[in-house]
Amino acid sequence: MPAFTLADLAQRFGLELKGDGAIEVRGVCTLAPGEGGCIAFLANPKYRAQLGATRASVVILAPKDLAELKTAGLVARDPYLAFARIARLFDPAAEWRPGVHARAVIAPDARVDASAWIGPGCVVEAGAVIGAATRLEANVWIGPRVRIGARCRINPGAVVGGRGFGLARGPSGWEEVPQLGGVIVGDEVEIGSNTCIDRGAIGDTLIGDGVKLDNLIQIAHNVTIGAQTAIAACVGIAGSTRIGARCMIGGACGITGHIEIVDDVVILARTMVTQSLTKKGVYGSGLPVQEAREWRRTVARVHRLQRYEARLRAVEKHLNITSKDEGDERDDGSQDA
Amino acid sequence: MPAFTLADLAQRFGLELKGDGAIEVRGVCTLAPGEGGCIAFLANPKYRAQLGATRASVVILAPKDLAELKTAGLVARDPYLAFARIARLFDPAAEWRPGVHARAVIAPDARVDASAWIGPGCVVEAGAVIGAATRLEANVWIGPRVRIGARCRINPGAVVGGRGFGLARGPSGWEEVPQLGGVIVGDEVEIGSNTCIDRGAIGDTLIGDGVKLDNLIQIAHNVTIGAQTAIAACVGIAGSTRIGARCMIGGACGITGHIEIVDDVVILARTMVTQSLTKKGVYGSGLPVQEAREWRRTVARVHRLQRYEARLRAVEKHLNITSKDEGDERDDGSQDA
Amino acid sequence: MPAFTLADLAQRFGLELKGDGAIEVRGVCTLAPGEGGCIAFLANPKYRAQLGATRASVVILAPKDLAELKTAGLVARDPYLAFARIARLFDPAAEWRPGVHARAVIAPDARVDASAWIGPGCVVEAGAVIGAATRLEANVWIGPRVRIGARCRINPGAVVGGRGFGLARGPSGWEEVPQLGGVIVGDEVEIGSNTCIDRGAIGDTLIGDGVKLDNLIQIAHNVTIGAQTAIAACVGIAGSTRIGARCMIGGACGITGHIEIVDDVVILARTMVTQSLTKKGVYGSGLPVQEAREWRRTVARVHRLQRYEARLRAVEKHLNITSKDEGDERDDGSQDA
Repeated sequence: MPAFTLADLAQRFGLELKGDGAIEVRGVCTLAPGEGGCIAFLANPKYRAQLGATRASVVILAPKDLAELKTAGLVARDPYLAFARIARLFDPAAEWRPGVHARAVIAPDARVDASAWIGPGCVVEAGAVIGAATRLEANVWIGPRVRIGARCRINPGAVVGGRGFGLARGPSGWEEVPQLGGVIVGDEVEIGSNTCIDRGAIGDTLIGDGVKLDNLIQIAHNVTIGAQTAIAACVGIAGSTRIGARCMIGGACGITGHIEIVDDVVILARTMVTQSLTKKGVYGSGLPVQEAREWRRTVARVHRLQRYEARLRAVEKHLNITSKDEGDERDDGSQDA
Repeated sequence: MPAFTLADLAQRFGLELKGDGAIEVRGVCTLAPGEGGCIAFLANPKYRAQLGATRASVVILAPKDLAELKTAGLVARDPYLAFARIARLFDPAAEWRPGVHARAVIAPDARVDASAWIGPGCVVEAGAVIGAATRLEANVWIGPRVRIGARCRINPGAVVGGRGFGLARGPSGWEEVPQLGGVIVGDEVEIGSNTCIDRGAIGDTLIGDGVKLDNLIQIAHNVTIGAQTAIAACVGIAGSTRIGARCMIGGACGITGHIEIVDDVVILARTMVTQSLTKKGVYGSGLPVQEAREWRRTVARVHRLQRYEARLRAVEKHLNITSKDEGDERDDGSQDA
Repeated sequence: MPAFTLADLAQRFGLELKGDGAIEVRGVCTLAPGEGGCIAFLANPKYRAQLGATRASVVILAPKDLAELKTAGLVARDPYLAFARIARLFDPAAEWRPGVHARAVIAPDARVDASAWIGPGCVVEAGAVIGAATRLEANVWIGPRVRIGARCRINPGAVVGGRGFGLARGPSGWEEVPQLGGVIVGDEVEIGSNTCIDRGAIGDTLIGDGVKLDNLIQIAHNVTIGAQTAIAACVGIAGSTRIGARCMIGGACGITGHIEIVDDVVILARTMVTQSLTKKGVYGSGLPVQEAREWRRTVARVHRLQRYEARLRAVEKHLNITSKDEGDERDDGSQDA
């Protein structure tokens, strides 16, 4: 394990030093309980009280929290970001050599940059291109007509360029629609374990620079994802949908096909997106957990809303109060019968 | 790349030709912007205006759209189906040789048809059977007692015949229930990337002819899926459920165990299916996306429905209006306390 | 296939014998239709009527069902558990030899117990530890700093110890937060096909003894799962959440990060868990399936609840009835505008 003096860290990362610059840092730790010889960080104010008891030798923190500091410190405007950069010094995964593992399978006409790493069990199909310093972890499949940019990481079991789910109904059942496009992945993209990105039907599926995809995500054919968008695990995005830049999409969201989501949209976990989102903002949907007996009553009540509305209308009629909710009439059921 | 004259295409697929039969088609393209030398299609009327500006040399279209045709054309009753068939001529994936890749692992007593392809990293366990012209892409696992029919395609990372999730509660924790059945997969089945189909506990899990499964689907032990049913990505189907023929199941649906869904049912994306569906039709559930602040209010209001109902009843009582909603009484909470 | 006399089975498993102890049992079967020479079980009273018609030679059943028994029987307090144990005698998967398949890749400094099995396509990274009698099926990836206990089974395509989804926002886009922790997996844990468990950011992700995980589950960095908890397929658990012991989590649930769920909680399938569950009990959420036309009306009504509430308030005002629902005022929208 490497070790760094506090003075060295302060200088490398342009941070203000509080305390003895000769202190040696040998690793990172959490603020509570902390560990001697290690560096922790304080980003969330609710943990400020832990500053007093931590066993960490150094804490990275914001100027506003300095009053509570009992150990040596490094002062940063964004302590979490500073921590991320310092922690990289201690990351054994950051050291890897380029090459192609003997158990990887590369098609003769695929192009793999000499600075890339292709791990065991990976398969790179004909016509695929793997950029500089890109890393395919293990058992990754890169399909035909897939171009991966530079400095990407593709985690185990990911499938990039699989056949899109294109089907046409024929007289005797489904007929396959050939998927003739590819996938274009930008630079500095992360693709999570067992995540699937299908190749386009005619044009390409596009994943912008700096996009970060967690595990077990499904991205269908001809989807476009803008630069620096981050998507948490278990999200599914249906075909031909366009997602803007710098969006943040929470876990297990489902996004329908052929819609557009503009830049800088935040979608909370488990949202069901059934229409285009044309305005920057924060979005959500779904009913959260209740005790099961209460939940069953909630469902019954929601399914009885038509009856409530009819009773409310009867009361209004009785009182000669006029209600102008056009919507109610449209869906009170009588018109459709 | 192959090339075909328009006259040749019209004759092969039985389509009416509009324009110069000598035009050469070298590939497919989208209608907008289109590409010279390529063939596009118009299926959705909302794109009809693109006929005027397309750079495609030929468009496949329905008789009703002919008036707007500016290029050469092929007239088809179902333009998307005709496109699917023509596009196959240009699909390099359609050309593959049978065989077993040197990096595949086949158990001695597994039976693999001589016309099948078993890609790198695939594992075919003891007793499994792979039918004629079936293709296992890469890193696919075929478990014991799995029979795959003819002309199937199994995409990378799929797991067919994994251990079903069978557990019995013993005095000191969960005990495994052996999963002694297999999986029977019909002909012309597609299984998506990283999709999992578990083997049966006693009898078999059954996937009918022509079933099409997208990526990241979970099919539990002893499920039955009828012929020509198509299931989009991220769907989960719990144990012993029976799904009929020709159903269409949208992405990210969850289907509970031990229920029955009849033939020709359409389930919209993200539906929570908690009971048998005994009538052909279209089904849905779930609350779609709202701006997050409004969504939080929606949740609060739904969880307050009991209170609304009580207030409505108080008004009715005040007015001496009789309401006969038995359901309300059943779940107003007072009876359960 | 092995065969056992009924007397032998009764003695091995401490069960009461009804009928001829010399009957030979060669396998297991379902109660309906059943199969001669095989043993079935009756656990769910709704199948009691099948006792009369079964072709099974022996039925495992509870004392209360004995009156209906027409065949030989084995009487058990918990017939399903007794069946699980007897069925194991007939499970060919129960017989396996330890070793490392020639197509597995083990890092030089990984430690694999001599009684473990590492199947084809598995990759065990540097510093990982695999315990006694643990089985890695095929194409499994075990990352750095992962310790797997004894007698575990890890199914095909599972990824244990992948990079957690740690990102910090930098001035020019996302920067990676190194994931320096590992994963500690207890004894007798099952990990389903294509399930992903990420390694911790600083500390470890912890999976307790006897935990059972189905397929396609996502477990994020620094999650803790208590002993004997069982989780069905397609569940996602976000980072740093702590789940207690002996919980049962249904399929496709989504559990947010940084919350705590106590011991012995049961969460029904597809529940959206957005807050800590501090009391043992059964929990659910979500709106179940309706015919699609009715579902669309339900959504419209739910999104119109604010209007209903306003109309109800107008009626109350008209009648001079005082309502004290503070919540309504808080979210009637006027305050936020």
